[in-house]
Amino acid sequence: MSKIKVLLLGATGETGASVLEGLAADDAFHVSIAVRHSSTDKPAVRALVARGFPVIEVDLNTKLDPSPLTPFNTVISCIGPEAQQSQLNLATAAKAAGVKRFVPCAFITICPPGGVMQLRDAKEEVYNHIFRLHLPYTIIDTGFWHQISFPPLPSGRLDDIHFMGENNLYGDGSAPNLLTDLRDIGRFVARIIKDPRTLNKKVFTWSDELSQNEIYAVAENLSGETIDKNPVSLAEMESIVAKAKQDLDADPTNIMAKMALWTQEYNLSKCFRRDNTRKNALYLGYLDARDLYPDFQPVSFVDYFKEILQGNGKKPYAGRW
Amino acid sequence: MSKIKVLLLGATGETGASVLEGLAADDAFHVSIAVRHSSTDKPAVRALVARGFPVIEVDLNTKLDPSPLTPFNTVISCIGPEAQQSQLNLATAAKAAGVKRFVPCAFITICPPGGVMQLRDAKEEVYNHIFRLHLPYTIIDTGFWHQISFPPLPSGRLDDIHFMGENNLYGDGSAPNLLTDLRDIGRFVARIIKDPRTLNKKVFTWSDELSQNEIYAVAENLSGETIDKNPVSLAEMESIVAKAKQDLDADPTNIMAKMALWTQEYNLSKCFRRDNTRKNALYLGYLDARDLYPDFQPVSFVDYFKEILQGNGKKPYAGRW
Repeated sequence: MSKIKVLLLGATGETGASVLEGLAADDAFHVSIAVRHSSTDKPAVRALVARGFPVIEVDLNTKLDPSPLTPFNTVISCIGPEAQQSQLNLATAAKAAGVKRFVPCAFITICPPGGVMQLRDAKEEVYNHIFRLHLPYTIIDTGFWHQISFPPLPSGRLDDIHFMGENNLYGDGSAPNLLTDLRDIGRFVARIIKDPRTLNKKVFTWSDELSQNEIYAVAENLSGETIDKNPVSLAEMESIVAKAKQDLDADPTNIMAKMALWTQEYNLSKCFRRDNTRKNALYLGYLDARDLYPDFQPVSFVDYFKEILQGNGKKPYAGRW
Repeated sequence: MSKIKVLLLGATGETGASVLEGLAADDAFHVSIAVRHSSTDKPAVRALVARGFPVIEVDLNTKLDPSPLTPFNTVISCIGPEAQQSQLNLATAAKAAGVKRFVPCAFITICPPGGVMQLRDAKEEVYNHIFRLHLPYTIIDTGFWHQISFPPLPSGRLDDIHFMGENNLYGDGSAPNLLTDLRDIGRFVARIIKDPRTLNKKVFTWSDELSQNEIYAVAENLSGETIDKNPVSLAEMESIVAKAKQDLDADPTNIMAKMALWTQEYNLSKCFRRDNTRKNALYLGYLDARDLYPDFQPVSFVDYFKEILQGNGKKPYAGRW
């Protein structure tokens, strides 16, 4: 059987790198990477070229010539959170090129549209554009990553790979959350995009559904350390979000305010609204990737935490934020 | 088995009346009607009271007391197109009351959200509110009614029951359109709302999928009359829609501009964008009621047209627009 030709945008990002490795490890696919003109000389791109991945240069800021997309069965976008709207031109070109499956940049927590998370709503605008085009699609959400879900330890031994934040405890800490190991995303995507059952569907991936209380218990039990938690109330969260919105309204280029808003809206949605759960995903019409692929063995949060305690962790977004 | 307690809002409207009759004809249901305070003395409401339907008075403009909704398993809204947002309070109260299935006022053509039809987007805001509440729901769309899809005849013999408009032919007249007889909506709803497969799903009903060309052919063949068609181009449609938007921006209370906008956006979506098709409904994630209920015998457009040629038609919206 001939290979499925896939074009991947954002292959040097965290999610994109996972997707690239997942597809590259699967003989079913032939993967090319889409790179913006301004990025072709970046070391991360040159490293992928050196590994033999063909490169398609794209300019997402203008109407795209669809012809470079014509050879591709599937286009996957793992574009950065700040550039969601540049997928509009990409989707239009993909439709004109006859692409059979467009995978927009979803890859976040489960959350309804319409005012809960600005980042979600930016993605929903892209989805609506896809729907208006009648463009075949698959939306893949992944919950929160193990890699940014573990707490730092008092001993400091995880500080090198810990992404950010203190040991906050949101509300009573009991909200369950879908988690996926960042490295599993690509392996899930490889299954999902060759599956006719997932065409024109939303799919979610997960290894565990854990509350903060359960995560802290895992961390304390496996490390032998006792973690002081900093309780954060709903009122505090809402006031932080309101402040970030205010700052962003005053200066839409204020990247720190945008980061604060996105981060805290994640926390509000996950930890207080309880949006990022299996039950809610099914309610919102998602297919469960674990139901679709019962033989898939995801890396559990416990196994991930054991790994990093042994010194085998890697800090996400290193050098990029 | 005890009956399913249903509360129906908008029972005196066209869709609501169909739903009421469909449920009343089915022993599975016990139907009550929700009526706004200001409407309790209307003759149409008094007629329903006389038939024995219990009445619940509601004030949709303020936060609702959920307790009157507590006895109901299912709440169905068939509210008028201009009052979609008043469902927000109703949905919030339904959630608080523990309602097991909320059927918002959908009941229109298949169309993606996000700028194609203002009426659709008003409904989508209600759906997003439902999703944010995690309120169990079923969204039921019905395509276009037979009752407003047939052309008037040159002889004038259908003028008494023809709703509005000339014999326009949009584009090349070949866009297929899902159609449902208005009277079948209630019968479909009775099936749909007692079916666990439709919980938290979108469902569409239809009897036929016909183009304007096919509808004109049916009308000419069955009537023996030749119909002059007035061709309308995409450019003309877009200019009419743009004008209506302008008028509405200038005066949001301009009901004629709003009606023009809604009507012409229907036409743009149905006849040019080809949104109101079975293929698009499945693409957008709807379940097909005909697949769910293969024994259901809907009234076909041909049978409906034969009926009205025999003088058995009824003008929709009579006395209300």
